[in-house]
Amino acid sequence: MPVFAARGTRDFLPAEMRAREHVLGIVRRTFELHGFQPLETPAIERVETLAGQYGEEGEKLTFRILERGEGGREGKADLALRYDLTVPLARVVAMNPSLPLPFKRYQVQPVWRAERPQKGRFREFLQCDCDIVGAPGRLADAECVAVAHAAIEALGFSEGFELLVNHRELLRAVVADAGLAEQEHQVLVSVDKWDKLGGPGVGEDLSKHGIDGTRLLARLAHAHDLDAFAELAPGPVAELREVIAHAAALGATRVTFDATLARGLGYYTGPCWETRITDGGVGSVSGGGRYDGLIGRLGGREVPAVGVSLGIERLLVVMGERGMLPAGVGGARAMLTVFSAETSGATLALAARLRKAGVSIETWLGEPGALGKQLKNAAARGVPFAVVMGPDEIARGAVQLKELRTGVQERVPMDQLAGALAEPGP
Amino acid sequence: MPVFAARGTRDFLPAEMRAREHVLGIVRRTFELHGFQPLETPAIERVETLAGQYGEEGEKLTFRILERGEGGREGKADLALRYDLTVPLARVVAMNPSLPLPFKRYQVQPVWRAERPQKGRFREFLQCDCDIVGAPGRLADAECVAVAHAAIEALGFSEGFELLVNHRELLRAVVADAGLAEQEHQVLVSVDKWDKLGGPGVGEDLSKHGIDGTRLLARLAHAHDLDAFAELAPGPVAELREVIAHAAALGATRVTFDATLARGLGYYTGPCWETRITDGGVGSVSGGGRYDGLIGRLGGREVPAVGVSLGIERLLVVMGERGMLPAGVGGARAMLTVFSAETSGATLALAARLRKAGVSIETWLGEPGALGKQLKNAAARGVPFAVVMGPDEIARGAVQLKELRTGVQERVPMDQLAGALAEPGP
Repeated sequence: MPVFAARGTRDFLPAEMRAREHVLGIVRRTFELHGFQPLETPAIERVETLAGQYGEEGEKLTFRILERGEGGREGKADLALRYDLTVPLARVVAMNPSLPLPFKRYQVQPVWRAERPQKGRFREFLQCDCDIVGAPGRLADAECVAVAHAAIEALGFSEGFELLVNHRELLRAVVADAGLAEQEHQVLVSVDKWDKLGGPGVGEDLSKHGIDGTRLLARLAHAHDLDAFAELAPGPVAELREVIAHAAALGATRVTFDATLARGLGYYTGPCWETRITDGGVGSVSGGGRYDGLIGRLGGREVPAVGVSLGIERLLVVMGERGMLPAGVGGARAMLTVFSAETSGATLALAARLRKAGVSIETWLGEPGALGKQLKNAAARGVPFAVVMGPDEIARGAVQLKELRTGVQERVPMDQLAGALAEPGP
Repeated sequence: MPVFAARGTRDFLPAEMRAREHVLGIVRRTFELHGFQPLETPAIERVETLAGQYGEEGEKLTFRILERGEGGREGKADLALRYDLTVPLARVVAMNPSLPLPFKRYQVQPVWRAERPQKGRFREFLQCDCDIVGAPGRLADAECVAVAHAAIEALGFSEGFELLVNHRELLRAVVADAGLAEQEHQVLVSVDKWDKLGGPGVGEDLSKHGIDGTRLLARLAHAHDLDAFAELAPGPVAELREVIAHAAALGATRVTFDATLARGLGYYTGPCWETRITDGGVGSVSGGGRYDGLIGRLGGREVPAVGVSLGIERLLVVMGERGMLPAGVGGARAMLTVFSAETSGATLALAARLRKAGVSIETWLGEPGALGKQLKNAAARGVPFAVVMGPDEIARGAVQLKELRTGVQERVPMDQLAGALAEPGP
């Protein structure tokens, strides 16, 4: 019987797991340093909790789970797979009215979407969110900007990224000023393509929809100059100044105002941001903003909220392509060979001793003897060292330590083996 | 709109996450020290992959996912949620024919079962498995015994546990010798209750099913004496001697032969084992054995396999009840208060500096001022320290560091603050 994984899903074998754990470890440490705390929610949610939260498209892409028993035979679904991490956060806030606020949580868990599988797009993928619930001010906004900035830096993108900020009400004022308030939705869809099409391209795109973008484009020609919008939208401009100043104090130095940033503005209520890897046309790897209305709408308390999401799957791909992931790490540091049934006890006892000393150790698991076969097997599985010990070595209390890549071999007293096998420092 | 989590599922808020991460961290480190490597597989598998693998009961308890589009409207399911970690392992081995063997993998992921929710039983729960694929011998068996033993020890159960071993063919020989080969299934179901009912209770249970257990019970009266079975089942006894000796050499000192251990023997093909917490009637917290037939049957290569599973959810409950979990750990080490809009830059810059030094820091996120409110909020959220800094402190380069539990306050130069906030060593 041929056996396949489900379409659009992946297994992570040890080498991939190491890379993912390395990246997630850095990200989690950054979140923790910023005082965000971990939350996990179940993969399965009640259908009612998710229904209507993600629009028509989301409805189609939600995986629904058949009822057990009679209802299931009739095709009824009562559960669904988690579609994002925001609705579950809102549910947790609603279910825990005594949760002390502000609640700064991070959550790194898979979500499921029935997308058409294609290169780089999966049906099960990790989301990685930081949110602050219950803090309405610019300090909280800046904290989200700073934590995303710090995470991207900690991953190794020191120079090649920028973090763009905008404000929903600023862009709305620009659209209204251009006399396009009634076409706002289509205008924002077009402006959202600014980084791909440029200003003239956006103008053409608007024309196609019968919209005259002349005045709008004239305004947005000064997209990086906050002063240019101070008269039109004094409140949002003041808020953005404050966010940018706070973020700079927190160490986020690569923050730029960009009035063309239009990401999902329907969802956001105030400042919003996006991080782009600038070299290599990678585009957005993180985004977020303030969404004060959402948690209340989802049945929670009426609490303000602001957050940022890292595109961790995309970052993993980019880091892999650029050689930014550790290669071949992990697994046992050495395999102890087994000379004979008689010496196996000494070998296993040495394994126990080394493990107690914190060294990751394998022992040969096949028939004793046949040293060449044992060494070949260890090398094939990428184990860096082998320890050869027969009756003579055991009697003398010193083993042969062989580096499998080079074949270099040296005699090491057993009580110095843990030290000899210790990983080199960073 | 009232919002609930799905029945039988749990949210893990930060305090619970800390406890779980603490326990999983110890378990993962133990697995790594023994040379097991991480694997993760998707939550969703094709219905065909899981169908027929878990018997009639398992079929009922499997969560199935509706097809998207037309098929779904007709109630057709094409995917199902992961039910255990063994079938996915077999699928991975089948899909990766060039995987070097032996493959020692650990996997810590949730599984889903539509059990009737009740105290301590959930529909989404973690499984935690170590398996060795491709090593047929007793060294591999002993390695699984040793890794489970080491994990339970590392979690802090130093004296209060025992690891029982038996052999499928030994128990089968005992049953055949008692003339009960044809009733083997029912006999094993009854013998499986030995630790709860004792020998006489098992005898009564057999009687209820019309089975005369006299000769069987006479044999099993010597359940802990391997010699008593040497004539009846010489092969299995020799294998168990070898497993026990190897495991002892690997440091597993609390291993006992128990001929009454009957756990899921239909599944196993050789030695099998179970770990029990002996004080407090907790019972089994880990089990496993050799299952050479399974991976081939599941469509993989014909490869031997042996493994052990930790009952991690049960261990978490027991450790919680016994105060073996770290309390109140995690979260920011200190909250930096914000005196005024003018001083906020200095406060945020100090936060950035402390975070760079590896100290987890929060800053006050509300309106500046109102120091009492800021301190109260930090204390309510369990932050251990607060840092008070106004214009005077900033001018002098020294802040007030306040321990929130005790109210004790001291003056600390800013450049010594990271040291003062460092966590006490273990």
